[in-house]
Amino acid sequence: MRNNFKRVGIIGVGLIGGSFAAALKQHALAEHIVGIGRHQTSVDEALALGLIDEAAVSMQALAGCDLVLLAIPVAQTQTTLQAALPFISDQAIITDAGSTKQDVVAAAKAALGERIVQFVPGHPIAGKESNGPAAADASLYQGKNVVLTPLHENRPADVARVRALWEALGARVSLMSAVQHDAVFGAVSHLPHLLAYALVSQIANAPDSATKLAFAGGGFRDFTRIAGSSPEMWRDIFLANKDAVLKELQTYQAVLAQAQSMLEAGDGATIERWLSRAATTRQNWAARA
Amino acid sequence: MRNNFKRVGIIGVGLIGGSFAAALKQHALAEHIVGIGRHQTSVDEALALGLIDEAAVSMQALAGCDLVLLAIPVAQTQTTLQAALPFISDQAIITDAGSTKQDVVAAAKAALGERIVQFVPGHPIAGKESNGPAAADASLYQGKNVVLTPLHENRPADVARVRALWEALGARVSLMSAVQHDAVFGAVSHLPHLLAYALVSQIANAPDSATKLAFAGGGFRDFTRIAGSSPEMWRDIFLANKDAVLKELQTYQAVLAQAQSMLEAGDGATIERWLSRAATTRQNWAARA
Repeated sequence: MRNNFKRVGIIGVGLIGGSFAAALKQHALAEHIVGIGRHQTSVDEALALGLIDEAAVSMQALAGCDLVLLAIPVAQTQTTLQAALPFISDQAIITDAGSTKQDVVAAAKAALGERIVQFVPGHPIAGKESNGPAAADASLYQGKNVVLTPLHENRPADVARVRALWEALGARVSLMSAVQHDAVFGAVSHLPHLLAYALVSQIANAPDSATKLAFAGGGFRDFTRIAGSSPEMWRDIFLANKDAVLKELQTYQAVLAQAQSMLEAGDGATIERWLSRAATTRQNWAARA
Repeated sequence: MRNNFKRVGIIGVGLIGGSFAAALKQHALAEHIVGIGRHQTSVDEALALGLIDEAAVSMQALAGCDLVLLAIPVAQTQTTLQAALPFISDQAIITDAGSTKQDVVAAAKAALGERIVQFVPGHPIAGKESNGPAAADASLYQGKNVVLTPLHENRPADVARVRALWEALGARVSLMSAVQHDAVFGAVSHLPHLLAYALVSQIANAPDSATKLAFAGGGFRDFTRIAGSSPEMWRDIFLANKDAVLKELQTYQAVLAQAQSMLEAGDGATIERWLSRAATTRQNWAARA
């Protein structure tokens, strides 16, 4: 299988798009990479950092691309694809890096119509709290998971090429349905983000907020790291995956109510059993991860 | 002020007690350190690691000590002090490293009676998820916060010596009441631990638990790190600080209910404002910390 591309268009050259560009270059998988952004400054920065070969703010630069990656907030998928479509060859593969998939697929269908056949939805699991081209890193995807949620409209060869490309960048690729993807990430990523934002919010609003923050230690630091993530991006993700997030949040509220009852009852043995089960799960996960 | 001690007794030579011993040695602040544990194996390990000068399983080894540190699960405070008291000189300073303070003070008063004057309650904020003498580190307290919650019974000179000792180990020492201590740490430490255990518990109990854990990434890793902590220790802390933890948990449940309403209403601007405020608080905290 051909594994390299002639001209790759990357829409959005922040952490995810910029790292994808840098990794393609490092592995010599693209002859020419054009980065497209809303603002000249960020694409110029990506060019200056050597992540891309060409910086553009117009979708016209997509002409001649055989691969197009969308690495933008998920809520911008439909308008971005609508603007891009006239310039994308009908032979090109279009893929994305969005953290939610059902809404991205719906947006892509609305924008692409019959050309949805070209769109292979994807999600590299490689977020950080840092953003922008300066955070880009050619080894970001090494050893990371990438989930593809192929459509029945896709050409199997296109799905195989996208899969092979991520694998060439060092990622472990899995395939699942968009529904399953959103349920899984609603639980292991979106819910924890919401919970971390909620804890920081509670402490920020406390009358003794300054004292509390002054004594917050390593546990607080790690637990709340993800609450420093981009509010714009996470607003989009929470809204895009609203149903799954609300479902997980409801379950979590039930778990907290159960913890509250255990604590009120003050039964040490029951509490310790509950904590032990979670600690063992966490330790086994860390040993495997 | 004399800043060094002749004979220091450390009851419990795990991460906290072992690191205290190692730091005293590094700074030449103790002429002789005796480690006392429930099990011969752990004090022998601490001795072999060079953390202490003498390993004991009997409280008799406390004879002649001018400083005694309790570094044990908080629920063991009363019985441990009762057993230790007959061997502790009435000139010695007794202090502790417990994560909760109101219950420790109550336990110490019950065990020590009028000799409560000797007990200066303390809490170094330096937990890790690793435990035992092997995890001990002479630089653990460097740059860390230590909170003392002195009693009106204490001799000011004793409080000053304990303070100076922690400062000599590189810690920043603050004084507050036991009530304030427990409220602050209920919010910034105990509640996040409970929330992390609850999230892991929810995922462990999900029917698709294996798939979810297979795709859990960096956000999950940091958010749940503290759910790998000792269940025995955290059972004790949750029970010891039950009132403050329940109060913070109740507030948190209200914050989650608010987040749920925002998400159900689907108002992007309101959600982004809420997320932004938390993200800014977190970023400012990290910049100062």
